[in-house]
Amino acid sequence: MVKIALDCMGGDYAPGEIVRGAEQAVRDNIAELVLTGDERAIKSFLGVSKGIEIVHTASSVEMHESPSVALRKKRDSSMNRAFELLKAKYVDAVVTAGNSGAAMGFAIFTLGRFDSVDRPAIATLHPTVNDGTSILIDSGGNVDCKPVHLVQFAIMGDAFAKSVLGIAKPRVGILSNGEEESKGNELTRDTNNIMKFMGINYIGYVEGADIYNGNADVIVCDGFVGNIALKVAEGIAESLNAFFRQKISRSLKNKMGYMLLKEMFQELSKKTDYSEYGGAPLLGVDGICIICHGKSNGKAIRNAIFMAKKYAERGLNDSIKDTMKGYQTINRAKER
Amino acid sequence: MVKIALDCMGGDYAPGEIVRGAEQAVRDNIAELVLTGDERAIKSFLGVSKGIEIVHTASSVEMHESPSVALRKKRDSSMNRAFELLKAKYVDAVVTAGNSGAAMGFAIFTLGRFDSVDRPAIATLHPTVNDGTSILIDSGGNVDCKPVHLVQFAIMGDAFAKSVLGIAKPRVGILSNGEEESKGNELTRDTNNIMKFMGINYIGYVEGADIYNGNADVIVCDGFVGNIALKVAEGIAESLNAFFRQKISRSLKNKMGYMLLKEMFQELSKKTDYSEYGGAPLLGVDGICIICHGKSNGKAIRNAIFMAKKYAERGLNDSIKDTMKGYQTINRAKER
Repeated sequence: MVKIALDCMGGDYAPGEIVRGAEQAVRDNIAELVLTGDERAIKSFLGVSKGIEIVHTASSVEMHESPSVALRKKRDSSMNRAFELLKAKYVDAVVTAGNSGAAMGFAIFTLGRFDSVDRPAIATLHPTVNDGTSILIDSGGNVDCKPVHLVQFAIMGDAFAKSVLGIAKPRVGILSNGEEESKGNELTRDTNNIMKFMGINYIGYVEGADIYNGNADVIVCDGFVGNIALKVAEGIAESLNAFFRQKISRSLKNKMGYMLLKEMFQELSKKTDYSEYGGAPLLGVDGICIICHGKSNGKAIRNAIFMAKKYAERGLNDSIKDTMKGYQTINRAKER
Repeated sequence: MVKIALDCMGGDYAPGEIVRGAEQAVRDNIAELVLTGDERAIKSFLGVSKGIEIVHTASSVEMHESPSVALRKKRDSSMNRAFELLKAKYVDAVVTAGNSGAAMGFAIFTLGRFDSVDRPAIATLHPTVNDGTSILIDSGGNVDCKPVHLVQFAIMGDAFAKSVLGIAKPRVGILSNGEEESKGNELTRDTNNIMKFMGINYIGYVEGADIYNGNADVIVCDGFVGNIALKVAEGIAESLNAFFRQKISRSLKNKMGYMLLKEMFQELSKKTDYSEYGGAPLLGVDGICIICHGKSNGKAIRNAIFMAKKYAERGLNDSIKDTMKGYQTINRAKER
């Protein structure tokens, strides 16, 4: 059975909701778990014990701590202990809802990067109107990228779409302010010129709407832009929920309408609820690492553990490593 | 009465929908109009004539034409003729749904920039959950900005919020990938350091969600990022409408639910329908110019004309010019 390390001290609702997610995951027989963090705090929330092991750590990374400070001072934290367990091959994957900058830092520091990846990147999965999934990479903290970084994100996204989503020829696009080649900024234009020669199914520039309309499988951007796209979407989902709640509670007629459309609203909230997706894989580090939303509840953690188990079973990281090596060989051949 | 020049050849549905919008505007007694474009084409759609004048032009800018080519070769286009009428003070404002890059170019070329503005910017208005309005600037084509450009966008947005929205101390933020000062990219960090000393109500970094949740009045970003934020929002609105249509038509029960909630859905589609907002002002050029969405229908054009009339009556441009001059004086004083 797959074994997964779970950082129980990371996340806005840690350790309570994190432990609750762990319990759901073992109850659903998804994986064996190693919980890292303050043993007493964890045990105060823990009802079951079968399939769960606790590795005590006295320190933990705060949610708003500077990642660089955490990297220097918190090597014995619950977060880094989880990565150390993965490095030692005691577990098959790590799940954390903690400070995502620190998680990226510790993942790189403890697990190491692939030779061919300068900057590991967070890939987020998004539902499309035609019930498909699109991948936005980087959704993480890689601001101020160079073209080579975006090209590497594209290749990792391509490998991910192939091995996890089972898409034979993923359509890979660069997120831009218009589809025409004349659009874009300096970064996207330079990246666009390289992408044409990478031998992947590159479809050129795509727009913000293409994250949701199914026009692309992999959408590449720097982490600054990716974060803004994500947060705009999250903000709209929140505003929408507030709007519906307010209107529906206003009259009996509206409440009746809601009852009749309940299934539709439930499907919608499932589609827009990030806890359904669990978390986002960090690609380019030597080990499977799922980074969850800081606001993750038990369900999100349970689903992130499921995601980690699936990726471990499918050998996601080997497939990315192989793909990256393949491109390196091609590029070396080109250079000659 | 305010007189407005309307480029009838710009927009995906030109000239039909543009002329329809013009008719609605004169019927609603909003303004007198000068329609620029192919006279025969315009007349074939035009039912009324009172309050409407036609200025014939043989050429027009194509929607996907390169703005720089248009600027060289299409000075006699319907679009530029509208700007020339404004320059000559024959009209008080220009409305166009044409190629927005070309519109920016001709506005700058024909009307001229304010001395204190290096790059005019498009400001879009967004509804917030608390029934307020936020301003996103630049939503246009200013990619690869420098800090000085973002600072100028902030000052123009501030002046706009004061004079048009009537907000005494607009809360001005920079769009970033997190609220903490440690976040942001090179551009936002440098801008952040300048913004603190500008004497405006600067609230620091804001996130994508803050465009809709009412936490800020003016949100500043470069045009690449602004476009992606806009298009993500548009994409979600479109996906949502498709989702509702599909689900509601599926069963009688759902149709009944929809009938009961009809007012709520109508309010929602009004909130997410850009044609309600009409268009977006281009700030920093010497004249009032409203740039509309390429997909504008008659209603959007009618509302854009209303917007242009309102700004003309309130002396929007004088107030921006005065504000910019004020800051220039402050800055010169500081330099001494």
